[in-house]
Amino acid sequence: MTRDRVLGLEAVLPNGDVVSSMHKLVKNNTGYDVRQFFVGAEGTLGIVTKAVMRLIPQPTSHEVALLSLPDYICVLKLLNAAESMSALSAFELMYGDYYCAVTQSNPDGRPIPDTSQYYVLIETMGYTPGADRSVFEAFLAKAYEDGLATEIVLANSDAQRQSLWAIRESVDIAVRALAPILTYDVSLEVADIDDYVLGIRSALERRFPGWRMIVNGHIGDNNIHIGITTGPDTKEHESEVNDIVYKPLAHLHGSMSAEHGIGTTKNGYLGISRSQEEIGLMRQIKHAIDPSNLLNRKVLFDDEAGGSGKDPRVTPEQFNG
Amino acid sequence: MTRDRVLGLEAVLPNGDVVSSMHKLVKNNTGYDVRQFFVGAEGTLGIVTKAVMRLIPQPTSHEVALLSLPDYICVLKLLNAAESMSALSAFELMYGDYYCAVTQSNPDGRPIPDTSQYYVLIETMGYTPGADRSVFEAFLAKAYEDGLATEIVLANSDAQRQSLWAIRESVDIAVRALAPILTYDVSLEVADIDDYVLGIRSALERRFPGWRMIVNGHIGDNNIHIGITTGPDTKEHESEVNDIVYKPLAHLHGSMSAEHGIGTTKNGYLGISRSQEEIGLMRQIKHAIDPSNLLNRKVLFDDEAGGSGKDPRVTPEQFNG
Repeated sequence: MTRDRVLGLEAVLPNGDVVSSMHKLVKNNTGYDVRQFFVGAEGTLGIVTKAVMRLIPQPTSHEVALLSLPDYICVLKLLNAAESMSALSAFELMYGDYYCAVTQSNPDGRPIPDTSQYYVLIETMGYTPGADRSVFEAFLAKAYEDGLATEIVLANSDAQRQSLWAIRESVDIAVRALAPILTYDVSLEVADIDDYVLGIRSALERRFPGWRMIVNGHIGDNNIHIGITTGPDTKEHESEVNDIVYKPLAHLHGSMSAEHGIGTTKNGYLGISRSQEEIGLMRQIKHAIDPSNLLNRKVLFDDEAGGSGKDPRVTPEQFNG
Repeated sequence: MTRDRVLGLEAVLPNGDVVSSMHKLVKNNTGYDVRQFFVGAEGTLGIVTKAVMRLIPQPTSHEVALLSLPDYICVLKLLNAAESMSALSAFELMYGDYYCAVTQSNPDGRPIPDTSQYYVLIETMGYTPGADRSVFEAFLAKAYEDGLATEIVLANSDAQRQSLWAIRESVDIAVRALAPILTYDVSLEVADIDDYVLGIRSALERRFPGWRMIVNGHIGDNNIHIGITTGPDTKEHESEVNDIVYKPLAHLHGSMSAEHGIGTTKNGYLGISRSQEEIGLMRQIKHAIDPSNLLNRKVLFDDEAGGSGKDPRVTPEQFNG
């Protein structure tokens, strides 16, 4: 998570105070974690004006492979095995629908046939090229022997590595292929992802004859991205599709925003991923730091209550003790 | 940092509300990071009653070596080189005074003579034993060739690994050897550590004839632990020694509590490591969540002002907007 790489920051509070917390230390347990008040708060508590990031040296080894897998159990087993590589830097799941959408414009350029339901791009980046290559090759060989992968393409040059990554990165091709499209960024426990995706697919199938869906994601971080079209009238069905995507997350304890935040469009769904007590606490914090609701007032909380003191959980008495 | 491994938690607020934030997701950007309100807050904002930790599988490779180094530049170069090992799990610096204090009771058991000023214990833990061993051996060989280490002991069995770790872990022996002792837990930028330690040593030398000091730490995390005695009257000099240790941290932008927190004994020094604006913000948060100052009122902030609303920066007007 990028938030874990933020060592320090500076922020301007709604009252104009500049809070300097420009620490450069990995360990610093001297009171509340001021950084994390602002990271992910979407500008509702202060405006971040500087940040100290923890960097790492440029890696000197780089290995990339693309695999097709017979089923989701194999995806889970492959992820488990991949996490044993200390230099693992990416584990990108692509469902067959995404892989087809991206590669259909150039079928001859497909490194692996488009007949599988599951594709994974795996990458390691480290500092010991010889050893990292050996570990990566041994990992791939074992995955194949164990029946986790049906086909494997291992990149042998920068050009090949880029070309495999291009499949994962060509979201724009997939989005154009399905346009008009609604996009989602959710996270849930890895073991639940496939059932969740299949559930959405069934719901779309029952409701929208012209539906298509693409799914890919960084599942080691619990995160998948979903694109859905119901046909030319997609926008009209947005609320209904939102419900199909978001509602199952409540009982799965998933998040309706893994990395993109809430902004002004998702705040109506915050209660799916956060308990009422969490939202109440957030409002208390918002109200304490920004009592006049000056900053990004339409963001995160909904307009009616957010930071304005209208939330019944937050009363002036509470603040005055 | 352990705080980065906390995926979720449950806490009881001062008003009795139970805030459930028991998420199991690595990525979850749905508003403020409720976990980090409570982690490191030392019970001043709520009582943590449950936590979800992100675990990793038990490693299957384990390599440990002890090195002596000619100077601090070599320590820095060695750390830089060690960080290229993806499986690096420990880089423990021990100054000569610490190494001597721990090994003096059993000089024959010293794996390396006690004539150096700098010792480092390095450990890797991974999942590819053969490759991890090769990488570790190559790293040590290069460190020796490059003149970073004068002597190296590489453990070849669990017993040997434990015996090298015992030197680092025998803080109790060192503490007994110097008792009565004052102990400190500070962090600062790695490049500054040696000048800082030498500065403290000089100050003690000038002031206290019977001084002794031991220093060790996890410097990859910026953290060193310091033990100081001025002789049998150490306790009487506590305030003076505190000043010697803490005051240089202000201009070095260090932390006077790397991992042990503030508690009730260090709150007078909080301003050395935190800006007035940071402390003001912390007080605002404390006052918003615990307006009656019910929880751990002597902890973190000093008694007079902490959370009681007496801090001039925090007025009821601010909270009422």
